[in-house]
Amino acid sequence: MSVLVVGSVALDTVETPFGKVTDAIGGSATFFSAAASYFTGVNVVAVVGRDFPHDQIEFLKQRNVNFDGLVTRPGKTFRWGGKYDFDVNQRETLFTHLNVFENFDPVLPEHYKSTPYLFLANIHPDLQMKVLQKMNRPKLVVMDTMNFWIEGTPDSLKQVLKQIDILIINDSEVRQLAETPNLFVGAEVIQRMGPKILVIKKGEHGALLVENGSYFWAPAFPVQEVQDPTGAGDTFAGGFVGYLAKMDDYSTKNLRKAVIYGSTLASFCVEKFSLEKLVSLSQHEIEKRYQQFINMTKCD
Amino acid sequence: MSVLVVGSVALDTVETPFGKVTDAIGGSATFFSAAASYFTGVNVVAVVGRDFPHDQIEFLKQRNVNFDGLVTRPGKTFRWGGKYDFDVNQRETLFTHLNVFENFDPVLPEHYKSTPYLFLANIHPDLQMKVLQKMNRPKLVVMDTMNFWIEGTPDSLKQVLKQIDILIINDSEVRQLAETPNLFVGAEVIQRMGPKILVIKKGEHGALLVENGSYFWAPAFPVQEVQDPTGAGDTFAGGFVGYLAKMDDYSTKNLRKAVIYGSTLASFCVEKFSLEKLVSLSQHEIEKRYQQFINMTKCD
Repeated sequence: MSVLVVGSVALDTVETPFGKVTDAIGGSATFFSAAASYFTGVNVVAVVGRDFPHDQIEFLKQRNVNFDGLVTRPGKTFRWGGKYDFDVNQRETLFTHLNVFENFDPVLPEHYKSTPYLFLANIHPDLQMKVLQKMNRPKLVVMDTMNFWIEGTPDSLKQVLKQIDILIINDSEVRQLAETPNLFVGAEVIQRMGPKILVIKKGEHGALLVENGSYFWAPAFPVQEVQDPTGAGDTFAGGFVGYLAKMDDYSTKNLRKAVIYGSTLASFCVEKFSLEKLVSLSQHEIEKRYQQFINMTKCD
Repeated sequence: MSVLVVGSVALDTVETPFGKVTDAIGGSATFFSAAASYFTGVNVVAVVGRDFPHDQIEFLKQRNVNFDGLVTRPGKTFRWGGKYDFDVNQRETLFTHLNVFENFDPVLPEHYKSTPYLFLANIHPDLQMKVLQKMNRPKLVVMDTMNFWIEGTPDSLKQVLKQIDILIINDSEVRQLAETPNLFVGAEVIQRMGPKILVIKKGEHGALLVENGSYFWAPAFPVQEVQDPTGAGDTFAGGFVGYLAKMDDYSTKNLRKAVIYGSTLASFCVEKFSLEKLVSLSQHEIEKRYQQFINMTKCD
């Protein structure tokens, strides 16, 4: 089954202790597609400016990513600049130029509307809702959000939460959205807001899947040199949703495996700048690391 | 095989959003013994004052904890007072009265000296070294420490680290001791200081075992109401070392199981105040929760 993603396609300027890239391909829809396309076909809904270097996403087209929903508008592409220190949890945003993304109005080509799996990347909740309403009810709706929307547009956010199946969120956002310091209590509070399934990302502490009254703990890969953490969350989502769509099955067992596939893809993402590592991974590399993840929790 | 523990026996006054206890039995050696005694015999080396209510540790004697090394000195027992908010990661120390613990000089009864498993709880590194030197070289030496000694007595601490097998430490202390923000790099730095095996406690994020070039991730139990987190770390250590001593085997497989047993005991500890929960656990309860831990990482 294929996946539709709505999100950003951007040009990132990133500096870390390991190097710097300028106007490198980024954006939530791009990282998501790069990861998900290892598993299934992807339909992208996003916007870029006239300056966008389309040749740099050519590799994604070859991996069955459809860009019929990528609209080009007069003006410049969304640009973001950031800097990370050795402590990759500390990110400093140097600039955010929304450019054509400021008036992003998602347009869904007709042949996208019946895509069975939908990922609403981290954009304004009103836009997430708009996309959701344009679709013929998908089999599974997964969304991401961030502190910016939890603080700024809580009512819009809560409307979307009612309509989705799976929320991908980080641990501090759980506490913020649920207004409790206890992560497990917070998860239940959010489940009552709508999504029956939560995937809580915890950076170097791995990820936690909460569903059907059970918890699944996924490790993080022990990456000693995080070259560039940009896009790791969207890459995780791409591996996670991509695997579910490929299997067309979101039983507990497959949800758990999907979390490990998401973690696997994210662990590759951070090893290089921008999409560098995600351009040319082999299935063998993915399966090998997946097995390494499994081995990190085995005790018999 | 039996375990020797050197540490504190104290009276704790603790306030949390769920209640308050005054002069409740506490101390690292006490929590450790309460947990370890579910697996094996324990020899305790500690000091109390004349005011210590010995009847309250009677249940430990019945579980094969030997207190021949518990010295009573003129004066009062070590007292600690603390307060936790709903966010149990935030602890406020209200008072620390060292009393007889201030001049603690560990005395080892002759029949303790060949105890094969040794746990050096979180006390001054010079005292840890002294105990180590008085022993007939144990089969396995496990130690705990804290930021106070990392900052205050780094040279003494590093001398002890050279002599031990397993260090139990929390994640922020890894970064502090190794002087790096990357946990995995930090683990390697500390392994080069001496201990070939590290158990990194991460609170609500579980625990990480690092040994022989491999990583093992243990979940935390999703406790929704942490009544009192005091003693959780020592309880973890008690379950961990107790299980290893019982099996008399610290292969990778058993180390991993031991981490889960430590986590299991710690998860019970925090559900009630002081030692309340550890007084009367059944083997069945322990095994049942152990299995729940195992299930939280299964994905096939």
